[in-house]
Amino acid sequence: MSKKRYRILVVNDDGITAPGIKALIEVMQELGEVTVVAPDGPQSGMGHAITIGKPLRLDKVDLYEGVEMYKCSGTPVDCVKLAVNKIFKGQKPDICVSGINHGLNNSINVIYSGTMSAAVEGAIESIPSVGFSLDDFTWEANFEHCKKYIKQICLQVLEKGLQPGVLLNVNFPSGSGLKGIKICRQANAKWKEEFDERQDPYKRHYYWLTGVFQSFDKGEDSDVWALENNYVSVVPVQFDLTAHHAIANLNTWDLDV
Amino acid sequence: MSKKRYRILVVNDDGITAPGIKALIEVMQELGEVTVVAPDGPQSGMGHAITIGKPLRLDKVDLYEGVEMYKCSGTPVDCVKLAVNKIFKGQKPDICVSGINHGLNNSINVIYSGTMSAAVEGAIESIPSVGFSLDDFTWEANFEHCKKYIKQICLQVLEKGLQPGVLLNVNFPSGSGLKGIKICRQANAKWKEEFDERQDPYKRHYYWLTGVFQSFDKGEDSDVWALENNYVSVVPVQFDLTAHHAIANLNTWDLDV
Repeated sequence: MSKKRYRILVVNDDGITAPGIKALIEVMQELGEVTVVAPDGPQSGMGHAITIGKPLRLDKVDLYEGVEMYKCSGTPVDCVKLAVNKIFKGQKPDICVSGINHGLNNSINVIYSGTMSAAVEGAIESIPSVGFSLDDFTWEANFEHCKKYIKQICLQVLEKGLQPGVLLNVNFPSGSGLKGIKICRQANAKWKEEFDERQDPYKRHYYWLTGVFQSFDKGEDSDVWALENNYVSVVPVQFDLTAHHAIANLNTWDLDV
Repeated sequence: MSKKRYRILVVNDDGITAPGIKALIEVMQELGEVTVVAPDGPQSGMGHAITIGKPLRLDKVDLYEGVEMYKCSGTPVDCVKLAVNKIFKGQKPDICVSGINHGLNNSINVIYSGTMSAAVEGAIESIPSVGFSLDDFTWEANFEHCKKYIKQICLQVLEKGLQPGVLLNVNFPSGSGLKGIKICRQANAKWKEEFDERQDPYKRHYYWLTGVFQSFDKGEDSDVWALENNYVSVVPVQFDLTAHHAIANLNTWDLDV
């Protein structure tokens, strides 16, 4: 194990007081100097949103000993942008870790997740980045069994690096007895929405977004399969969204006007 | 040209009263029955955010003749989910079009854009989907020169279909004299943030997110190149974010704990 003290940025989307980020900070303190920039309240489901219509607040707080911490009024992606620009000031951190999210971010959830979008923003900033999520959305979730895996994954990222444009999405089953780590692809799955329709006291309708997660994927190399079989799933994620395989076909289309 | 009257969902992120969506509706009325579900206010930069912490409103409005229109209190992605679930009710539209955005969504902007995220959500729902954006962020932007291209692109999508998991990101230069359509890949480019720091009347600091767009891409097959050279750029986009090319290397890592 390297003796180097790494400079580490920790972010999340559940907010700076979440137990999940506390667990992640505890692991990161074993590896280096920790700076936290996290939302001042819950920002789940914010995806890659940024704040452009209103100003942002960034205030120092003092929650855990030996950790430089800031709460931010914006989204998880805003946190990363402010951290890089206003706190690290061009001297980028050695690694950006996001989480531990209270709730899974496997499969298509990577696209809705503030936790994963913060890690994606870290990668856009050319910082080796990893998002961590646990299959337990309760505030009382137990993160202890995740810690040794997080440490090993981060050590490998710090020692071996990640290819440009690639970050990692790590998901943990809840409970103990994990079988190890599996490198996976994102499963073919989606949410089937179910809007819960209600009436307010003024007789106007409103909706709560709910849904059930549906996997259509029979492969044993997907993150859904790994998690169902009690493995830690690690999916390499990219932010080049080009469907390169579709270009040749599109070049056969009649696009003259 | 087909005589079929298509069922068309129109969304955007600039809000239901934006001139850009009016221009898109006008083109779509030539192709079929138009249903609009759009945010009740500006939702630029909302990325793939969804609303889970508060309820959603969906109200019918009557702005343009012959068009079924709803305003939604949520994000662009919420609009698509509500449209599919509460308005189309399982009988999915033949096409989902988003825009026309006031401002470019080329390169990495696809990930921050509410316009493009709405189109991505359409594709997740297995609806052929296209996002349209113009290189003019003003409210007074002129969309006339985009219309014939939009019509032709949508006719091709409706007739030829799109591969599963693929949607289109279409960007227009402003002004006339366009040279035609180029099928492109997303350019390697990003925003260099510049936070404008100010003080409120109570002596507390706040920040406005600003920045400059930087392209590192020298290729002539990118959307940045096409737009700079007065072409309409069409990039096929996917929502499988797996970096498949990184899996083999990760399988060489030491991940035993």
